[in-house]
Amino acid sequence: MKPITYYIFLVLLVSLVSCKQTKVERTNKNNLEHPRLLLTASGVKEIKNNLGTIPLFDNTLSEIKKEVDTEIKKGIDVPIPKDLSGGYTHTTHKKNFITLQKAGVLYQILNDVNYAEYVKQMLLSYAKIYPTLPVHPKERSYARGKIFWQCLNDANWLVYVSQAYDCVYNYLSVEERKIIENDLLIPVANYISIENPQFFNRIHNHSTWGTVAVGMLALVLDNDELLQRALYGIPSDNLSEDMRDNDGGYIKKDRQDVGFLANLEEPFSPDGYYTEGPYYQRYAMYPFLVFAQALQNNKPDLKIFNHKNSVLLNGVTALINLSNKNGEFFTLNDAQKGMSIKSNAVVTAVDIAYKSGNKNPALLSIAQQQNKVTLDDAGLAVALDLTKNIQKPFVKKSVEYTDGNDGKQGAVGVLRLKDLELVFKYTSHGLSHGHYDKLSYSFFNNGDEVAQDYGMARYVNIEQKGGGNYLKENKTWSKQTIAHNTITQNQQSHFNGKYKIASEKHSDRYLFDVNNPNIKIASAKDNNAYNKTSLHRTLALIHEETLNSTFLLDIFKISSNKTHSYDLPLHYLGQLIQTNFDYQKHQNPKVFGTQNGYQHLYEEANYQTKNENISTTWLHKNKLYTYTTLANEKDSLFLTRIGANDPDYNLRSEPSFIHRKKGNNILFTGVLEPHGSYNTSTELATNAYSHIKEIKTIVNTQYYTAVEITFNNKVSKMFVIANNNNDSKIEHELDIQNKKITWTGTYTYIEIH
Amino acid sequence: MKPITYYIFLVLLVSLVSCKQTKVERTNKNNLEHPRLLLTASGVKEIKNNLGTIPLFDNTLSEIKKEVDTEIKKGIDVPIPKDLSGGYTHTTHKKNFITLQKAGVLYQILNDVNYAEYVKQMLLSYAKIYPTLPVHPKERSYARGKIFWQCLNDANWLVYVSQAYDCVYNYLSVEERKIIENDLLIPVANYISIENPQFFNRIHNHSTWGTVAVGMLALVLDNDELLQRALYGIPSDNLSEDMRDNDGGYIKKDRQDVGFLANLEEPFSPDGYYTEGPYYQRYAMYPFLVFAQALQNNKPDLKIFNHKNSVLLNGVTALINLSNKNGEFFTLNDAQKGMSIKSNAVVTAVDIAYKSGNKNPALLSIAQQQNKVTLDDAGLAVALDLTKNIQKPFVKKSVEYTDGNDGKQGAVGVLRLKDLELVFKYTSHGLSHGHYDKLSYSFFNNGDEVAQDYGMARYVNIEQKGGGNYLKENKTWSKQTIAHNTITQNQQSHFNGKYKIASEKHSDRYLFDVNNPNIKIASAKDNNAYNKTSLHRTLALIHEETLNSTFLLDIFKISSNKTHSYDLPLHYLGQLIQTNFDYQKHQNPKVFGTQNGYQHLYEEANYQTKNENISTTWLHKNKLYTYTTLANEKDSLFLTRIGANDPDYNLRSEPSFIHRKKGNNILFTGVLEPHGSYNTSTELATNAYSHIKEIKTIVNTQYYTAVEITFNNKVSKMFVIANNNNDSKIEHELDIQNKKITWTGTYTYIEIH
Repeated sequence: MKPITYYIFLVLLVSLVSCKQTKVERTNKNNLEHPRLLLTASGVKEIKNNLGTIPLFDNTLSEIKKEVDTEIKKGIDVPIPKDLSGGYTHTTHKKNFITLQKAGVLYQILNDVNYAEYVKQMLLSYAKIYPTLPVHPKERSYARGKIFWQCLNDANWLVYVSQAYDCVYNYLSVEERKIIENDLLIPVANYISIENPQFFNRIHNHSTWGTVAVGMLALVLDNDELLQRALYGIPSDNLSEDMRDNDGGYIKKDRQDVGFLANLEEPFSPDGYYTEGPYYQRYAMYPFLVFAQALQNNKPDLKIFNHKNSVLLNGVTALINLSNKNGEFFTLNDAQKGMSIKSNAVVTAVDIAYKSGNKNPALLSIAQQQNKVTLDDAGLAVALDLTKNIQKPFVKKSVEYTDGNDGKQGAVGVLRLKDLELVFKYTSHGLSHGHYDKLSYSFFNNGDEVAQDYGMARYVNIEQKGGGNYLKENKTWSKQTIAHNTITQNQQSHFNGKYKIASEKHSDRYLFDVNNPNIKIASAKDNNAYNKTSLHRTLALIHEETLNSTFLLDIFKISSNKTHSYDLPLHYLGQLIQTNFDYQKHQNPKVFGTQNGYQHLYEEANYQTKNENISTTWLHKNKLYTYTTLANEKDSLFLTRIGANDPDYNLRSEPSFIHRKKGNNILFTGVLEPHGSYNTSTELATNAYSHIKEIKTIVNTQYYTAVEITFNNKVSKMFVIANNNNDSKIEHELDIQNKKITWTGTYTYIEIH
Repeated sequence: MKPITYYIFLVLLVSLVSCKQTKVERTNKNNLEHPRLLLTASGVKEIKNNLGTIPLFDNTLSEIKKEVDTEIKKGIDVPIPKDLSGGYTHTTHKKNFITLQKAGVLYQILNDVNYAEYVKQMLLSYAKIYPTLPVHPKERSYARGKIFWQCLNDANWLVYVSQAYDCVYNYLSVEERKIIENDLLIPVANYISIENPQFFNRIHNHSTWGTVAVGMLALVLDNDELLQRALYGIPSDNLSEDMRDNDGGYIKKDRQDVGFLANLEEPFSPDGYYTEGPYYQRYAMYPFLVFAQALQNNKPDLKIFNHKNSVLLNGVTALINLSNKNGEFFTLNDAQKGMSIKSNAVVTAVDIAYKSGNKNPALLSIAQQQNKVTLDDAGLAVALDLTKNIQKPFVKKSVEYTDGNDGKQGAVGVLRLKDLELVFKYTSHGLSHGHYDKLSYSFFNNGDEVAQDYGMARYVNIEQKGGGNYLKENKTWSKQTIAHNTITQNQQSHFNGKYKIASEKHSDRYLFDVNNPNIKIASAKDNNAYNKTSLHRTLALIHEETLNSTFLLDIFKISSNKTHSYDLPLHYLGQLIQTNFDYQKHQNPKVFGTQNGYQHLYEEANYQTKNENISTTWLHKNKLYTYTTLANEKDSLFLTRIGANDPDYNLRSEPSFIHRKKGNNILFTGVLEPHGSYNTSTELATNAYSHIKEIKTIVNTQYYTAVEITFNNKVSKMFVIANNNNDSKIEHELDIQNKKITWTGTYTYIEIH
């Protein structure tokens, strides 16, 4: 259905539904204590008792006081909504709800009525305009808001404003409460739920925000009707199964459960991995956890934190483990680089998980890195325990997180060894934010991204770039297979770039073994990305003791029923230093292809190989890297750069190395090796050269693949993997170069001469 | 003369000269104390008395001990010379001389004979091979060394090894001394001087090293013949005036004074600016200062530090002032980015300048940033005084350094205001390391380079890139005018890229005024870069209080006898966000030109202007910048990128914005404005838009140029400069838009409505 078609459909739907909508009378009982969401009346008392002795809390308080005081000085500004993200009215309303929540908290903690008065006046200003507001004039969203261009932001607003209202509840007169509730808060809640079921009644981070917004308000008002709606959704919505959102994601499957609890069920695996990836998990965790905490405080019988084997608490640990050494999240699927554990959403998540989880002392050290806490009961618990010096380091280890609500839809494997981190993706599609990149990886050295996942094509909240929204290149480049470190067949993206097909499939773990202190290995298969083609990739971080060096070994085995062309890119970051092959650089860069992301690459140089080892060395942030790969007669190599067909310079100009092979039974074997460094002040390069002398394929059958790596120190090692038996207890025996070798388990790595 | 021709010439010359060369007998008197260069016998005593109470010294000592112990464990390795920079034998010999110097010092301070023994054994190994060594097999240098591929590195070697020898002198037997002096040290000194007069007898940083190497050895041996040679050069060298070095620099002018003292005279201006620029000044300062200190300790009557109005001490201050907020040197002329005050040469310079200068407490805070000291008398003085807590901040201010040995060959102007730093170059050519970039600038915001000087095309000591030496693109790109933020006429570099002409000319300061706390201004003229064309550029950092914002105003006035085409590039760093003009991006980048650096640019997009304000916004390191410039009907704009005709990827792929105007009387007016920032963790953009509403030229005559700038806050300001009278006391009167304005001095900046 085209946007305009379903917009008409929605208008009809809204007219139908709105007859059901009755103004909710104030049902709260005056004997309830306020505040009661994240900051509770008893929490306030305890905070006041400890102020001045809890440095992290005290510092956060003083910083937030400064911020809010600055905002209060500027006066109240509630403009008529008009702009997209990044624009003036958008930014102002966003700042308003954030400031309101903080001002409410300051009123409670500092007992200063100026803050309460500010909240009151601001809410009354909103209450004055809200009943007059039409649907937001910008028509871009499948679910337009009133205060913002999309319901999502209106929901954000209500999540924060409910907290502010809770804090000043007792400061307001009954008359003021009536105005604010009946002209503002309840209408907002109804608008984003009953009037926008396509936003509210689905399984998506949008709906999480929607249900939490309604739920938070429900708890403040002690309104059971709203609470039921929040927890279980709107009973009947008549939403069509074909309906899609702006990202192309489907709104709803048939007979799907909806509401907060269903949203909690669906996108999280039992391990706490959120199927859209850590960037969106970070965003989604905030509403999940604040509402969970508020439910825990008000409806403890729900035992929300025990839900699905404590999935919310597991989710916080998963989120932290899915960040690199600098605490920046791996950019799986749509994700902006630089988002990190320092974001406020994660501060909230960590504090709540600490307080309502098992008081994991490793979370305290994360809170230290965040260098702030939430100004509520949870933040107090963290700040108090930090004064006791009981924190432990949060050691990020190699770990695998299964995907899918049953944990059976593939997984993401994180390998860590010495300074290296590798993220290997063999998950399901990741809903509407998913990319077509089965078996892709990204690779970090001491926190520097070296083999990159491009992330999304979007400059969030930078209005000049398409209002801060997703850019068209997100679909044409970022989501396409060639934009990732994985295989593209015949220059077609996985699943032909079709969401409907992709979203029903997932890859499968073949092996995840991190027991050997010097080898961390993950291996996965995919038989769905291309019809009648099976992909099997093995990635291993290996610490080679004879060199005191750690590298990535990549073995990508492809079998198909007929001959195809296969492209394996390495999206490296840095300045090319040297190759061992004599590429021809074109006088003018050529556009590399016409579709599926290829149209965004310039081909700068190419080379046709012999049977040879190919190596490419580059410099990135004063470290030296070499990628060595095994080429056959007439493979093609391309040096490419992102930026073609990018009329608005939306893409970053960054290089890639692309290896093309043709055949029906293909093996790509590569070693990516950080080996040296450069100091711009001493001007000394250390270990400027790769340690790899030669890579050779020794065996490559349906059953086994064996690769020999010879180092410059003359040591030769062999890596062998069994391709069709991942039983860790099976004994294997193989004749290789007239020698019999035996081992137990799926792989072995041994010295050979 | 072609390299091969003058090589033959040299061989002849050497044969002629070598008959003069007699083996210098050991002339040192045994009653002299050792050590006696930088570390003195009395210094050693004082150090021993203070060890354990001088943290910076103690820490440096323990780090250096660790380094040297590691080297000693590896054993002695004195390979037969073979490689270029970055290669194994080069790196090993370089590491050797550095380790020898350190081991000598450790022997003195720690009294541990293992260190002395290591130095002795290493020196004996060198003494064994040196007499057998031919000239280095690599033929690239105009003055090939024996241990290294060029005499320069052999001289480096001797500067350090003389210090090591001095430290172990008393540990050695007379017999051992004889071997080391007669088979090694004196032959090395003779080789780099008498046998290579084209290296030794010139005014160049090479000769500084050469003379210092010979001089340091002279002081250790108390050998007056060598000392005279070091101070005053070889009396008669028969060097031809046409002879050039590998960079194309002339070896020697007729009847030029040579030797250390002449080298001290020539390249430094009285302010302490070194004409090649700070990158080479940093390199040259080490030999200048260590030899000066050694002379001061042994020949105090020379009063070397008082020489030329204390030029050596002034030089240290100049060097620090020519670094940005991060302490990284401005890349004037040939220079590698990232070189900083933390380099060991600058540590030495700062410590010596502190001890032998006026004990400037601001140098102590630089030593703190360096976080190490030299392990000698000077380092001790610094470390001791740091324990007294008497350091003061080194405040880098706006400052102008004159160029030329008389201070009359132009200058470099450094403007600093708030977080902004601007370097404006109106110097002489800068010897063989000079670039053709009269009136160019580079611009920094809080230490981030925003409008860049490309620096040199060289990866120092990274062997894979041309042996770590200058790459051919240094000449074809880096030195060319278009590679810099200044004007190119008719796509020809300044002086047509001819060194001989360029090296005789310089630009001239017109105005340097940093008295106004809100305006720092420099203005300069050049009438030499192009025949019959006069260039006049004014750069001002202006803090606009009504906006609380600071920006760069650039007024570039060009007058010629006929119509030419003028290109003014802005070599910005970062990601293009938005332009206010509708450029056409080409499907394939075109090569921008055929020569003078243009052949290295891709033209990615262009636009033909109307009479309009042109603005370009970009994002760099999470800060937002806008460049606004005034265009006339049919100016051309180009968005370009470096990288064309660069077959080996020697150049960095970086963007530029190029504005082209045609005419004989041209005015470029631009504002470069850092105005906002982005936070990847909160995803908030603050001040994402430029403050500039409009720029207008109000007056542009031979006598005055007036520019009106209107800000978004509706304030309009006018900047007026008198073009032909820089008398600061003159009163000006001008009718502008029917209003009479008056002011005193060369410029004014006033509110106009």
